[in-house]
Amino acid sequence: MINRQWRLARRPVGLAKESDFEWREEPAPTPGPGQILVRNEYLSVDPASRAWMWQDNTTLPAQPLGSIVRGITLGTVVQSHNSAFPEGGSVLGVLGWQDYAVTDGGSDAVMRLPDDDAVAPTMQLGLLGHIGITAYFGLLEIGRPRAGETLVVSSAAGAVGSLVGQLGKLYGCSVVGIAGTAEKCRWLREDLGFDAAVNYKTEPVFKRLKEHCPRGIDIYFDNVGGAMLEDALNLLNEHARVVACGMLSLYNDVGGMLTFPAGPNNLLNLTLKRARMEGFVCLDFWPRAAEALRALARWHAEGKLKYRVDVVEGLRNAPRALNRLFDSSNRGKLVIKIS
Amino acid sequence: MINRQWRLARRPVGLAKESDFEWREEPAPTPGPGQILVRNEYLSVDPASRAWMWQDNTTLPAQPLGSIVRGITLGTVVQSHNSAFPEGGSVLGVLGWQDYAVTDGGSDAVMRLPDDDAVAPTMQLGLLGHIGITAYFGLLEIGRPRAGETLVVSSAAGAVGSLVGQLGKLYGCSVVGIAGTAEKCRWLREDLGFDAAVNYKTEPVFKRLKEHCPRGIDIYFDNVGGAMLEDALNLLNEHARVVACGMLSLYNDVGGMLTFPAGPNNLLNLTLKRARMEGFVCLDFWPRAAEALRALARWHAEGKLKYRVDVVEGLRNAPRALNRLFDSSNRGKLVIKIS
Repeated sequence: MINRQWRLARRPVGLAKESDFEWREEPAPTPGPGQILVRNEYLSVDPASRAWMWQDNTTLPAQPLGSIVRGITLGTVVQSHNSAFPEGGSVLGVLGWQDYAVTDGGSDAVMRLPDDDAVAPTMQLGLLGHIGITAYFGLLEIGRPRAGETLVVSSAAGAVGSLVGQLGKLYGCSVVGIAGTAEKCRWLREDLGFDAAVNYKTEPVFKRLKEHCPRGIDIYFDNVGGAMLEDALNLLNEHARVVACGMLSLYNDVGGMLTFPAGPNNLLNLTLKRARMEGFVCLDFWPRAAEALRALARWHAEGKLKYRVDVVEGLRNAPRALNRLFDSSNRGKLVIKIS
Repeated sequence: MINRQWRLARRPVGLAKESDFEWREEPAPTPGPGQILVRNEYLSVDPASRAWMWQDNTTLPAQPLGSIVRGITLGTVVQSHNSAFPEGGSVLGVLGWQDYAVTDGGSDAVMRLPDDDAVAPTMQLGLLGHIGITAYFGLLEIGRPRAGETLVVSSAAGAVGSLVGQLGKLYGCSVVGIAGTAEKCRWLREDLGFDAAVNYKTEPVFKRLKEHCPRGIDIYFDNVGGAMLEDALNLLNEHARVVACGMLSLYNDVGGMLTFPAGPNNLLNLTLKRARMEGFVCLDFWPRAAEALRALARWHAEGKLKYRVDVVEGLRNAPRALNRLFDSSNRGKLVIKIS
């Protein structure tokens, strides 16, 4: 068996180029005692994938040059020396941009999925996986929405943002999304039920937010950072919450955190408005995952949560696909069908 | 009776100059029905006093040009048409930079003090007033210190900061202060029991903080903003708290918030570290003031909380005194003895 793989050849500067990666074909590895061999079938491409390429540690240690590119995958156990992961079972884990991975299941955050699972694989990597858990706990635990409040979401047509906005509607909020194309804005308004959407590429964001949030902003779910965060901070209500989920605007910056551009000039608003800006990482909520997945599955079954998946065919296309997250060309949760 | 007063003649740019204010001597006002006449005896000078001069609203509406300069005072009721405030009683309120004020007691946040109060007037404007309430609830409610954690305080020799650090020690934290003179740093270490102090004027702040916080920062009590905030954010531990009390580094900026310099470039650390940055205003805790004042008075009586007051004689000197808060020359809580 051949194990096709992408390795990190150099740390990208700006948008990742295919030449930042090295394509290799090697014999598939052999599992040792206690280990399993997993055939990866789907690869999740997330904004964090790009940040994981920095020389700095993020929520995980920086990956060394020359290693298999880090990524969350869904696969099947094809060989097992570990009774916790029987052959033929489905697993989710951080098993990288490759066809085959060997793991002991303890490292790599490997999670066994139910045998009788009728959920589509792309759903396991999205609505009913780390994406859903991020949106659910980020909004409900950090954002704490109350009916009648105003919620603004950036990267609103993305995998997390589109769920956050819909959850906000379920909790009775007025919801305004910020996205990068007219098609996405239309989708947010017409299909997902957002109250308004702002196209940050063609519209003045602060002016439009001010119009669409006549009672100010109670929750800003921030996936972007930078100028949009500054705009949102200028419209915060008293006791507002800023959910610091991520900062897409920085992930393609020059190689790491020390070179980031300066931040918003109006953090004093957090004091003046008695507001809270708080970060979180979905892994922290892993022990409570069942609560989120049950609720999300039910709302999805009832037609109350819509979810769009953007499937790219072929592991070969992973480096190019990554950039779709940053140029507004992805449409929904980005997933690679590996073979 | 003559009412000497300072009025706001223009909005200061940079450090306030005496020419930004107008000195006037007018007949003292006469209280109408339901009103009282208060003779101000002490005036509290706080960093917020400078921010109140901006053209922008802060936690209070911007004060109009030509009005009496806003300030918190301690005084005596000399004439009363309001049974809630008998003549001869002591009151605290936002009664301005002047000898005499007329108020109905409802506006101006006027609070009657106990008749038999043996507390020194300068204490009412500090440890046992808005300063103590700020330090107490800011640290305990927003910062939530736990024994063994590391607390960093900026403007640590100031009225609020010096209390915050000592409260941190009472709660079992390792406490590092940042201040602007060698004398202040010595005071923090030798008299107040801080574990370490950094002189930001002569030492590299980030390097020293890193040395003095070998286990990282769990709580950063921010009175300054700017570069110090950025330094602290780079040392945050997981689940750290940033108490956004104020931003001294901005208050003398060019006239208002829209012109503020860019902020810290590393807010992404809030996400990576699952950290929380939260603002508060002491007025929000007014209903719980008794809890703070009781605890602070007890600790002070037991010698566990030290407090330094810097009294400037004469209302005439108020404009110059204000700048002592920003050039490191004040020593403790700054109070003007009005006459």
